Amino acid sequence: MTENHLELVQLINKRLEERNYGSEPKELYDPIRYIMSLGGKRMRPLLVLLAYKLFKDDPETVVDQALAVEVFHNFTLVHDDIMDNAPLRRGKATVHEKWDANTAILSGDVMMVKAYDMLLDAPANLKQIVHDFNACAAGVCEGQQLDMNFETLATVDESAYINMIRLKTAVLLGFSLKLGAMLAQSSKEDAELLYDFGVSIGIGFQLKDDLLDVYGDQAKFGKQVGGDIISNKKTFLLLKALELANEDQKKQLDYWLGLEKFDAVAKVEAVRTIYDAIGIEALTKAKMNEYFDHGFSDLEQLDIEEEKRASLKRFAEYLIDREH
Amino acid sequence: MTENHLELVQLINKRLEERNYGSEPKELYDPIRYIMSLGGKRMRPLLVLLAYKLFKDDPETVVDQALAVEVFHNFTLVHDDIMDNAPLRRGKATVHEKWDANTAILSGDVMMVKAYDMLLDAPANLKQIVHDFNACAAGVCEGQQLDMNFETLATVDESAYINMIRLKTAVLLGFSLKLGAMLAQSSKEDAELLYDFGVSIGIGFQLKDDLLDVYGDQAKFGKQVGGDIISNKKTFLLLKALELANEDQKKQLDYWLGLEKFDAVAKVEAVRTIYDAIGIEALTKAKMNEYFDHGFSDLEQLDIEEEKRASLKRFAEYLIDREH
Repeated sequence: MTENHLELVQLINKRLEERNYGSEPKELYDPIRYIMSLGGKRMRPLLVLLAYKLFKDDPETVVDQALAVEVFHNFTLVHDDIMDNAPLRRGKATVHEKWDANTAILSGDVMMVKAYDMLLDAPANLKQIVHDFNACAAGVCEGQQLDMNFETLATVDESAYINMIRLKTAVLLGFSLKLGAMLAQSSKEDAELLYDFGVSIGIGFQLKDDLLDVYGDQAKFGKQVGGDIISNKKTFLLLKALELANEDQKKQLDYWLGLEKFDAVAKVEAVRTIYDAIGIEALTKAKMNEYFDHGFSDLEQLDIEEEKRASLKRFAEYLIDREH
Repeated sequence: MTENHLELVQLINKRLEERNYGSEPKELYDPIRYIMSLGGKRMRPLLVLLAYKLFKDDPETVVDQALAVEVFHNFTLVHDDIMDNAPLRRGKATVHEKWDANTAILSGDVMMVKAYDMLLDAPANLKQIVHDFNACAAGVCEGQQLDMNFETLATVDESAYINMIRLKTAVLLGFSLKLGAMLAQSSKEDAELLYDFGVSIGIGFQLKDDLLDVYGDQAKFGKQVGGDIISNKKTFLLLKALELANEDQKKQLDYWLGLEKFDAVAKVEAVRTIYDAIGIEALTKAKMNEYFDHGFSDLEQLDIEEEKRASLKRFAEYLIDREH
């Protein structure tokens, strides 16, 4: 991350710390302060401000609107964690664990309202911004529902999987960039190009996440390598392997997927061996690079100064190259 | 209800039936169609249109915005029913019973988004409308949290109780009326008077609901008479009785509140006898009428034709006189 980016993240974190979401009843507002204080990379509001800076020089005037996407993102985490029965978030207790499910439902609801509230002082394009935010928010809910649906299916085809990660993860990155453009009153074309860039990069990120779970360097990767294999998670790698496996490989995969009790290391090793035989790493990398390339070609079409294009590209490359 | 009101309700129901909230994934959108089809009096969108009609003659142009408050109201019912563990809503299975809690959480979330979406084509005052809707929506969440908090307290004082029902129920009625005024571009003064009128009438309604549970006519009252007494619900009647009871009455009340097993008819009879001795019915009626009177005095100050004022007053009186 460049010094410039760090400055923006510091601005975001400072404003988040100062933010007053509400006070009474504290059972409603304490969980909001809690989840917002757990940190995170603040990538989404950073994308808002970086997109804004492509067109205007006063990002400090639209920080509240940038924070709206961070509050919304954290709202989805609070509700997703209930649905996924997740005990931990960023290494700390989830809201429904620290309080209870009812508190997590209701605090989440009020976070969504606060996200809308933070958009309201947009200097321009309010109707378009709320319209696009609604489409994005509905999409994120659809993606979460699809993800839950997939758990009960034997397999899912590639296009359905890509559509799910597009909705669950990528549209919010696209919206964040487009929001910055709309706040800066860019041309409609540039706003759409930034949206498409964000969505493509977002899909690429998720594929990379899937890849790192199996082929990542444990020292750099934040989570347990092989966690997705252990939990039978329907990642791009597994779905592609189920699609392309020969009869014997399919039998082996089904064996490991069906075991109720198993040695975790042995399962990860066995499934990775099947992946290797099929060439899943290269296939996933190719698909991931397809989306990254698509995103970068959108970036090339933006009607902005070369220096700014290069800076945004450097930031995207920084995000792409991270190993965690 | 006058013929004119019935026509508006028919318009509301027709548009609700035509409405497309979304289609895929159906696990997300089916519950929305289900809860919206269970009916209800559609009082909130009717209030939007009635307020609009005080100032303009084309209510058919703002039906979508009126429906936003109905969708929002039903969203709160879906989430409240999870929190309250309620099996039935309007005599049918609640969403979390018919599907599951995760579906109810996520479908509810998307309903909130759709409510915002339906506000967007407001012909005027969009920023103010979304701002006020946010304040109302946060208030409703605060009211629900306070209501849940009260369950764990021995008692609650009158002002805290009134504040809870104001937030949980009344502010949405006030907002509905103010929304109609804002859509019609009324003066700020008239919009505020209508808001205050709705809040006061809403508090009065809730006090009347509390009263009808104990002193209502079983034949006209939709629910089981005495249901609040059976479940130890902290209504205005119980809180006032706990406040005003003498030592002996307090002991009797505590005895019935503390029983784990009891004969329902005997408990209702015994608690009502204590209420009668303290004069709770008259006290509650006095408090209720205080709010109704306050509301009607706001109505008197509205800068509108006398005929329209009389019509709105008749509608409010119709709502007040209902026994269910």
